[in-house]
Amino acid sequence: MKIIIAPDSFKGSLNAVEVAKAINHGIKRAFPNADTVLLPVGDGGEGTMDILVAATNGTTRNVSVVGPIGNEITAKYGILGDKKTCVIEMATASGLDLVPMGKLAPLDATTFGTGQLIKQALDDGYTSFILAIGGSATNDGGVGMLQALGLNVLDANGNAIGYGGGELNKVDRIDTRDFDPRIKGSHFLIASDVKNPLVGAKGASHVFAPQKGASPEIVRLLDRNLTHWANEVAKVTGVYLHNLPGAGAAGGIGGAFQAFFPGEMKRGIDVVLEYSKFNSFLEDADLVITGEGKVDSQTASGKTPLGVAEAAKLAGVPTIIIAGSVGQGIDVLHDYGVISVHSITNKPMTLEESMEDAVELLELSAEQVVRAWGAKTLHSPVTTSQVLSNDVSK
Amino acid sequence: MKIIIAPDSFKGSLNAVEVAKAINHGIKRAFPNADTVLLPVGDGGEGTMDILVAATNGTTRNVSVVGPIGNEITAKYGILGDKKTCVIEMATASGLDLVPMGKLAPLDATTFGTGQLIKQALDDGYTSFILAIGGSATNDGGVGMLQALGLNVLDANGNAIGYGGGELNKVDRIDTRDFDPRIKGSHFLIASDVKNPLVGAKGASHVFAPQKGASPEIVRLLDRNLTHWANEVAKVTGVYLHNLPGAGAAGGIGGAFQAFFPGEMKRGIDVVLEYSKFNSFLEDADLVITGEGKVDSQTASGKTPLGVAEAAKLAGVPTIIIAGSVGQGIDVLHDYGVISVHSITNKPMTLEESMEDAVELLELSAEQVVRAWGAKTLHSPVTTSQVLSNDVSK
Repeated sequence: MKIIIAPDSFKGSLNAVEVAKAINHGIKRAFPNADTVLLPVGDGGEGTMDILVAATNGTTRNVSVVGPIGNEITAKYGILGDKKTCVIEMATASGLDLVPMGKLAPLDATTFGTGQLIKQALDDGYTSFILAIGGSATNDGGVGMLQALGLNVLDANGNAIGYGGGELNKVDRIDTRDFDPRIKGSHFLIASDVKNPLVGAKGASHVFAPQKGASPEIVRLLDRNLTHWANEVAKVTGVYLHNLPGAGAAGGIGGAFQAFFPGEMKRGIDVVLEYSKFNSFLEDADLVITGEGKVDSQTASGKTPLGVAEAAKLAGVPTIIIAGSVGQGIDVLHDYGVISVHSITNKPMTLEESMEDAVELLELSAEQVVRAWGAKTLHSPVTTSQVLSNDVSK
Repeated sequence: MKIIIAPDSFKGSLNAVEVAKAINHGIKRAFPNADTVLLPVGDGGEGTMDILVAATNGTTRNVSVVGPIGNEITAKYGILGDKKTCVIEMATASGLDLVPMGKLAPLDATTFGTGQLIKQALDDGYTSFILAIGGSATNDGGVGMLQALGLNVLDANGNAIGYGGGELNKVDRIDTRDFDPRIKGSHFLIASDVKNPLVGAKGASHVFAPQKGASPEIVRLLDRNLTHWANEVAKVTGVYLHNLPGAGAAGGIGGAFQAFFPGEMKRGIDVVLEYSKFNSFLEDADLVITGEGKVDSQTASGKTPLGVAEAAKLAGVPTIIIAGSVGQGIDVLHDYGVISVHSITNKPMTLEESMEDAVELLELSAEQVVRAWGAKTLHSPVTTSQVLSNDVSK
């Protein structure tokens, strides 16, 4: 019996590795001899670097960079097991989690540090990049990153503009002369599920800036500034980012990549599955267990468990989803190879209780679910006494 | 695919029939062509009559009796499909649910009505009885019932004592001369899980009278009175009820049966399974689903789902338990043929929410659990589109 354990994180509670470990413990309580493979996944946002580095036996390198609010911080980039592919996780250099709650600075937060990470990786000789751009604190259109890589973004006096989306209205001229030439010779795969345009009601500022600390007034200011920035970008590149799908990702850095970088944007889970060689583990697998904090009808429009289930279905392997919370509209998931969906809650409890006890609840639910699923296999679930004697022998 | 649905009630929320129906709906959403058998069960307490009458296509007969607090009420007894076996459910004549909360009367509540039900059934010619004695409002040692059947329980003046456990200290003499002679010629199967003795710290008064409205002082008075009653019973029958296991069931009516009735006491679920011919339905069954409001380590010491699982295991059929709440210590259930235990909660919620939405939550959880269980059968779970087209065709 071979079971692939490929969950996302339970946001605010456990990261994907912790979720996978808990599910594994639960499975082993039911079937001590089960062959399990832990392949935690993610949506291409925070944690992606760790997941891909772990899945491929890669390494990381620390880099001192400018953090989102201008202070010096230690970020890092990952090198996959192939020793060729570099993973840049924006959140490690310009992430919302790096900013204390009281210091959110939607006008000032910069992507400069993300640019420094890329520059160091280029200096180190890498030309193949995966960029995970979730969880940013910024709304600067990616201008900080571009500046770190040599782009001259100048005001009317010919001076470089300062950090943050609040400065973008000052842009008078973009000069690409000093933009790092190694960018053109590299390949950038952007892992992002965000399809929002750069500006307007569905743009970066209106949709994402509020959670980065922007008041309605600041949202409007940021949107105007990004529009001005898009106008200037169009002049120099011919690319109109305004309504381009994905340009609004991560405070507009999605647009910066589309205008100035060679490469492509893919759904986060697909990037993770591809580079963690998920398919190779599906051979001979009997079951995939995935999960995330909340599963509902939105899951069917592209969240991590769906990507896992789709990949598993192509290989003929059924998927079971375990979630903290199971919402409405999950029926449609059965069309994507999901045989069943289960919550970790085992009694009435508060959200706080379910998050505090998440490890134990995950173990218990995984155990019971695989017992139900595995009841018909040749390997019957063990009785408690067998489990106990097995534990004792260890 | 044949699935037996044999749940207990979810106390305070759904009766056993409602639980079985909801589980059935859930199964049919996953496997529209599954062959399901609804066999709601119980612990021999409230609802037992309805369950056995329904399971055997029996009937009921209304009888006007004295209720627990002395008012006239309409109770009923059941006649099983064999037209020979009579089910007397004490709660319909002397039950706690018949007494408004403010009118609990632990000193006065009487089992007289239960005796009247038995008398009417004897008058109607029945000689084989199942007595379900859970849920009583009384603590009278069964004296009311015995009086209704002709036993003379006399005070020092030779007058019959009044209703309730508060009168038992007055008993001076028990005269069996007029006790209904048909009792001796009948058989009484008492369905009860209670092993408590009649008196003392684990006796009827100390353990059960508080929930019937007794203060600590009244509890001590009732216990003294039951002790006096037991002394008098010993004089006339030779049976010392004081420490007899089961004599403390249902306010001491368990002792009355043991001293004055021919018959035996059995675990409630076993009586229900035997008379509903549960075993006959297990042939060719692939799965049994049972459940109750709360499953925990106590379930392993004799509650309904355990009885169901044990019977199913003897027939080689695995059991899945679905519960409102799953507590600690369920591992031991796997030794009794339970392959897995699942909660109906599908997200963090309050107890009230889980009870209000119990039908929908039961449907959803039953669907997902049988999907997981059934994934390996020849009949694969249907996809949503198949279910929908199936529904449309109806």
